[in-house]
Amino acid sequence: MNEKLDELKKRLGEVTDLGHTGLLLEWDQQVLMPAGGSALRSDAIATLERLAHERFIADEVGQLLEDLRPYEESLEPDSDDASLIRVTRRDWEKARKVPAELRGEIAHAAATAMPVWAEARQNSDFAAFLPHLQRNTELKQRYIDCYDGEPYDILLDDYEEGMKTSEVAEVFDEMKRELVPLIEAAAANPVDDSCLQAAFPRDKQLEVNHVVLERFGYDETYWRMDEIVHPAAFSFGTTDIRITTRYGTDLESLFSTMHEFGHGLYERQVDPALDRTPLGTGVSLGLHESQSRMWENLVGRSLPFLRWLYPKLQETFSAQLGSVDVEEFYRAVNKIQPSFIRVDADQVTYNMHVILRFELEQDIVLERIALKDLPEAWNAKMKEYLGIDVPDDRRGVLQDIHWSGGGFGYFPTYSLGNVISLQIWERVREAIPDLYDQFEQGEFGALREWLGENLHRLGRKYTPQETLRRVTGSSLDAGPYLRYLQDKVGELTAAPA
Amino acid sequence: MNEKLDELKKRLGEVTDLGHTGLLLEWDQQVLMPAGGSALRSDAIATLERLAHERFIADEVGQLLEDLRPYEESLEPDSDDASLIRVTRRDWEKARKVPAELRGEIAHAAATAMPVWAEARQNSDFAAFLPHLQRNTELKQRYIDCYDGEPYDILLDDYEEGMKTSEVAEVFDEMKRELVPLIEAAAANPVDDSCLQAAFPRDKQLEVNHVVLERFGYDETYWRMDEIVHPAAFSFGTTDIRITTRYGTDLESLFSTMHEFGHGLYERQVDPALDRTPLGTGVSLGLHESQSRMWENLVGRSLPFLRWLYPKLQETFSAQLGSVDVEEFYRAVNKIQPSFIRVDADQVTYNMHVILRFELEQDIVLERIALKDLPEAWNAKMKEYLGIDVPDDRRGVLQDIHWSGGGFGYFPTYSLGNVISLQIWERVREAIPDLYDQFEQGEFGALREWLGENLHRLGRKYTPQETLRRVTGSSLDAGPYLRYLQDKVGELTAAPA
Repeated sequence: MNEKLDELKKRLGEVTDLGHTGLLLEWDQQVLMPAGGSALRSDAIATLERLAHERFIADEVGQLLEDLRPYEESLEPDSDDASLIRVTRRDWEKARKVPAELRGEIAHAAATAMPVWAEARQNSDFAAFLPHLQRNTELKQRYIDCYDGEPYDILLDDYEEGMKTSEVAEVFDEMKRELVPLIEAAAANPVDDSCLQAAFPRDKQLEVNHVVLERFGYDETYWRMDEIVHPAAFSFGTTDIRITTRYGTDLESLFSTMHEFGHGLYERQVDPALDRTPLGTGVSLGLHESQSRMWENLVGRSLPFLRWLYPKLQETFSAQLGSVDVEEFYRAVNKIQPSFIRVDADQVTYNMHVILRFELEQDIVLERIALKDLPEAWNAKMKEYLGIDVPDDRRGVLQDIHWSGGGFGYFPTYSLGNVISLQIWERVREAIPDLYDQFEQGEFGALREWLGENLHRLGRKYTPQETLRRVTGSSLDAGPYLRYLQDKVGELTAAPA
Repeated sequence: MNEKLDELKKRLGEVTDLGHTGLLLEWDQQVLMPAGGSALRSDAIATLERLAHERFIADEVGQLLEDLRPYEESLEPDSDDASLIRVTRRDWEKARKVPAELRGEIAHAAATAMPVWAEARQNSDFAAFLPHLQRNTELKQRYIDCYDGEPYDILLDDYEEGMKTSEVAEVFDEMKRELVPLIEAAAANPVDDSCLQAAFPRDKQLEVNHVVLERFGYDETYWRMDEIVHPAAFSFGTTDIRITTRYGTDLESLFSTMHEFGHGLYERQVDPALDRTPLGTGVSLGLHESQSRMWENLVGRSLPFLRWLYPKLQETFSAQLGSVDVEEFYRAVNKIQPSFIRVDADQVTYNMHVILRFELEQDIVLERIALKDLPEAWNAKMKEYLGIDVPDDRRGVLQDIHWSGGGFGYFPTYSLGNVISLQIWERVREAIPDLYDQFEQGEFGALREWLGENLHRLGRKYTPQETLRRVTGSSLDAGPYLRYLQDKVGELTAAPA
């Protein structure tokens, strides 16, 4: 029986190698490839993706999984081997349901639509993008037809396995009820964030980012950080973690770096025994985002952390921050204010951007809206949820890349990450009572280790829901997150001390 | 019939993508990968190599080649399609002859031997390396047994297709006869190269390298240059060329950069119609080395080139070179003096290092020498050819990496490159009568274009011999190279003006 298992692991090792290598091709293209190489690079990426997919969905893999059933049943369900067989079978059965031809059409439509979208956004020209959105939508309907179940559930499942639309809707409805009045309260007492309007030199930002990263646990034996146009974290197994950032004149890079560190740390702390298997990575986008948001917001925008970092910031940026005290800085980086662009949004309003997209995506998939009417629907919701008038489609319906690639079902995971981050944070606070004292000393090892032990090392052994239950003891629950936001708004709208 | 050809091209495109991607994994590892990633990287490289090989030697490829015979015969033999079918068939038949198991053993033995060799070299401990050399040699004998022909011819063929040992021996014997007295003459009149003993700051070297590269035709749309421990050129098709260098305190990086530029330019100027096929690369190591040597020595160490560059060098390194005139600098960078290490050797003595290895490799393969006696044989030849006593095996038989990977048959191509570089140079001089005047003006476009038109664009369409014949009108001939070296030594041993 071990021979069959070895054979399965060998095949999965190859597929993982191909997947990581395909991702390296993308990292390289985005970070440093000479621009002229892009046409041949697209071919190479397509080849790697196709081969990885073909070798995974092969009949031989199904046969091995079938042959391994008796062995699987003899194992503890929590063991690495039982989990490997179980998860691989689920992945294999799901992947087999979509014909290669449809996959090819979807990939081709996405590749065709993306440059059109980029230009349409620049020109605020929704009509130019519309035919491509139409095509992506039709293909997604054909994709949905490959599976049984509620249409939007099928899309969600690609990013947050097992998550149901109804469950998300319940959480989001609760958030909407609570957040709309919070946003109004914050708007009535605006925070002064003028201290962030200065110009912060790139080299000094880079220096500060490295000070923070090294305290967090970045170690150049296993990590790299590079500049990129669209920041993201990449990993090629647990031993090669690459985060990226972009330097503007503001301090955005500091927070975006802590965000990407959170993603990178999750991948870095997966049990190395799971490397070169489908289990050797974070379990879902929602859980992943909970980790990036935690380091960005629950650590990085907390007062105890800033009490440690701020003296260094003031020293580094004495001209910009010399006369600003830490409480003023803390309030500025936590400012809540409605704005048009999701990726620039604060912690509270961000969720309304996501809820809007979640609702519109369901309208699209269930054909409750004509695609040509999307801009109007978008703008109406922005007015309703954030009280602002969208001036053009560039700052409205065209702002995000996701739909150009047919990525319906992705957006909700951003807010699920926020919700989950606080569910986990409550456990962290109980387990490490002096957590904030540690932050004030610039100590983050206990947090890092707790996350590694309780979440990261599990990789994809369990479903996202089971993983969440193991870490927090409960299912998805917006309560802790909403209490956190209420406290935050309460602090910010109180008169400064 | 075009359907079969399209199918073949699709398969070869995939194989080429896998090959380039495997090479990118190596480039990345050597240039920037976090060190901790090396174990997983080795797995990924092995996976890519295995898949590329399997997909190339597949029965389907053989069947397509067979089906395409009538079509091939209907084409002009010089056409891209006829060449593609012809060369692919030759590659396929050759690759099929070695069992996958033996390939695996060879790769594994090389991977095992390399770190042992590295440590043995450091400790000058030949006995520690001997068992691995033994193993590599046994495996090479089994590899040779897969083919018909003279044993050393079979090894040469892997690096210089179609080249015969007897042909190399004839050329090398002629070189030996001519070079030994030249080396003695140079030793009797040593050049003063004290001006090169200064310390040249890295950042200024980098600046000068870029000035030179940009004049040569380096364009950051298609090229990169990075730092690396062992400089080499990498390419992933014609549109992504990456050269590398290493900065010491001397000016070695300047010449090594021009060398790697020569390799890179060859790949850059292959006909883009040959991209994603086995034809889309330089034809052999010897032809490739002719290009690197040409830019390093025939351009970079020429007086006309230095007349253009030297004022910039003097300006950049005024403390080091301010009181040195261009003729003195020219003589210093062309100094001929026997030394122990091949990679540091001058233009003349370099060939004796290669001839020594060529002779010893034949002795090994034909079992005319016991491996344990190699150090003694090495040292005796060094004494005979260069008149120097090797002090230890680190500076003797252990200096090069090649044998640790079983790379017998590679060394001769270095000197073949020197020989060929001058055969081509004679044609260049005829075609561009004012070549040296152009160099004095810092103009290299005519040379670059002539090489592109007459050599580079051909890629692997023809055999190395046929390629050489098409470019120069003749077969391998040491005459031009020996005349060049005689002139050079004559100049250097004459009293300075």
